Amino acid sequence: MILPSGFRSSGVKAGIKKSGNPDVALIHSDVPCAWALSTTQNLAAAASVHRARSLYSSGAMLQAIVVNAGNANCVTGEQGVRTDRRMAELAAHELNLEALSVLTASTGVIGVQLPIEKLEVGIPLAAAALGEDVKAAATAIMTTDLTMKVAEVILSSGARVVGFCKGSGMIHPNMATMLAFVVTDAVLEQTALRSTFAGIVARTFNAITVDGDTSTNDMAVVMASGRVACDALEGLEAIEAVMRDLAKQIARDGEGATKLLTVNVRGAPSEADALKAARTVAGSSLLKSAVYGNDPNWGRILAALGRSDVTFEPTQASVSVQGIAVFDGQPLEFDKDAASSAMRCEDVVIDVDLGAGSASGTAWGCDLTENYVKINAEYTT
Amino acid sequence: MILPSGFRSSGVKAGIKKSGNPDVALIHSDVPCAWALSTTQNLAAAASVHRARSLYSSGAMLQAIVVNAGNANCVTGEQGVRTDRRMAELAAHELNLEALSVLTASTGVIGVQLPIEKLEVGIPLAAAALGEDVKAAATAIMTTDLTMKVAEVILSSGARVVGFCKGSGMIHPNMATMLAFVVTDAVLEQTALRSTFAGIVARTFNAITVDGDTSTNDMAVVMASGRVACDALEGLEAIEAVMRDLAKQIARDGEGATKLLTVNVRGAPSEADALKAARTVAGSSLLKSAVYGNDPNWGRILAALGRSDVTFEPTQASVSVQGIAVFDGQPLEFDKDAASSAMRCEDVVIDVDLGAGSASGTAWGCDLTENYVKINAEYTT
Repeated sequence: MILPSGFRSSGVKAGIKKSGNPDVALIHSDVPCAWALSTTQNLAAAASVHRARSLYSSGAMLQAIVVNAGNANCVTGEQGVRTDRRMAELAAHELNLEALSVLTASTGVIGVQLPIEKLEVGIPLAAAALGEDVKAAATAIMTTDLTMKVAEVILSSGARVVGFCKGSGMIHPNMATMLAFVVTDAVLEQTALRSTFAGIVARTFNAITVDGDTSTNDMAVVMASGRVACDALEGLEAIEAVMRDLAKQIARDGEGATKLLTVNVRGAPSEADALKAARTVAGSSLLKSAVYGNDPNWGRILAALGRSDVTFEPTQASVSVQGIAVFDGQPLEFDKDAASSAMRCEDVVIDVDLGAGSASGTAWGCDLTENYVKINAEYTT
Repeated sequence: MILPSGFRSSGVKAGIKKSGNPDVALIHSDVPCAWALSTTQNLAAAASVHRARSLYSSGAMLQAIVVNAGNANCVTGEQGVRTDRRMAELAAHELNLEALSVLTASTGVIGVQLPIEKLEVGIPLAAAALGEDVKAAATAIMTTDLTMKVAEVILSSGARVVGFCKGSGMIHPNMATMLAFVVTDAVLEQTALRSTFAGIVARTFNAITVDGDTSTNDMAVVMASGRVACDALEGLEAIEAVMRDLAKQIARDGEGATKLLTVNVRGAPSEADALKAARTVAGSSLLKSAVYGNDPNWGRILAALGRSDVTFEPTQASVSVQGIAVFDGQPLEFDKDAASSAMRCEDVVIDVDLGAGSASGTAWGCDLTENYVKINAEYTT
């Protein structure tokens, strides 16, 4: 997939990942970009997350992002902060930019110092390798991912939105880290971008769950270079579409997962409530296990809704699984074998009406399998 | 284990469990008791939970409890409410009591009507079988439990506190329900009992986690018959000791679990914060998988603390695993092989100092194993 005009990216091997796979990615725009940022709510946030927030509040434009995989550079103290700053300086030097226009991002094992000497070799290589295709960068940021995750929307004006991300795979199991980068050549005002970004993140990346463990390094960034005119609303909708596509790719590639679980909630008091209820269902270990086993055990859906901290009255609620109505204020008679058969596929959809309002929202998750445990039972030793 | 003086209990087969195992339990005191109650926060609460709250607020004394396992009688509509009331009436009739002095409790599959005709046979059998031993009742309330869970403390005055509970086993996987019943012949005022019970529950049953899924039927009850004098403080401490013992038994017998995980948090701003931080660590799927694999992957502990919604500064925190210091504001050098070896046992202890206050708290959990998934992947079909 080719990046929007004016953007280039690369992915190279710096020797940070034990596997020897590419682990340093670089993204560069030929002009300074409007940008918006969303970072983890985890208090033990990584050095790169602290730096990103500081850059964001400075109001500076963004022109490049340098990313490493295989090491989260998180809870690594003052040394980690220095390494992160050096990482930005190395990229800035290669690209002839101010360090303040270069964002850093890291993903991988927590609590191990990031080897700066490997970045000193890798970042110049990445700068030399910059090209129009997104594939090398999208591959280099992968950790436990089984699949590369990219998405694209083309606007009517010809402007384009391209995004890529990583999250929730299989090789380095202690890093359910999510990183997402979306770039567009469309003209989008910084103010509009930033004021709408939190809502877009709420409906996309914050609406997925794999195992309930919030990463210390989560980061989603959008950069708009303003080379191609576009309708502002269309541009923002395109960004949301790209991010929704990427979010679903992360959920489907959840560690050990065999299925994408979609939970649609309507009849909620507010959109935030709908999203909270949907995500609670999508994150229930009991329900995720049932989805894996093709078990239409809808009692677990009601139990998850009931603990979701959303106000509703169970006797007013209804639930269906794969389009089959199973609960409508009270248990419904349904063909369990037929429902189980309907669940034997890669996409399982649960629809809930809370009967408590008019707002709706969707969350995505995956099934819980024995492989999730295997993947995560032994990593650092 | 023999019940305190004046209490009798029984457990019989009514044919509610598919396994054919005992599934109706009865507890009876020869005098009305002071009592305290704690029930699930789940909005989709079972019929028995709604009735228990109503009895509790009526101020009536309690003299008997009738329990069924194998069916939660939850989200079963008006019919379920009628069945639950009938269950109390059947027991009251057999014991020559008012129905308002009989508590009901149910545990098992959610969303299936509880067959009242089986209770009409089982409850008279249970009344006829009442005896001084707690074993039959403690066995009859089990669902997925592998072990019977009972605990006892004898006070200096000779008064006794005996408790039993169920939770988190292996046979009927969609019912991570917790029920706990504690009875004592000690003299304890209703007011003192009720005013301290919430705190005791917070430090015991609410400090355990198996899979993060809050049951619709959780219920903990203490009954004090007042036959034997005791020091009030000693009596309340004995109740807490019995409940802590039972809570740890539930965590150790978590579905698929091979280990008991104890998380001690100190240096917290408040006890509630300490308990929240400890329970978040004990409930992290990533950490639970690492504990299963004997992996001293402490980054996952910091990541869980960081999302626990407790305010602290990671650079002021310290962590040890099995007594081995692994983090003190920054990563510490430690022997990973030795730490992994130390984790190869049935009891894994994590100590955290948040460096953010002087309060402390402990939570208990278990490891996450492939068996958890297997147990929960297929039940209702």
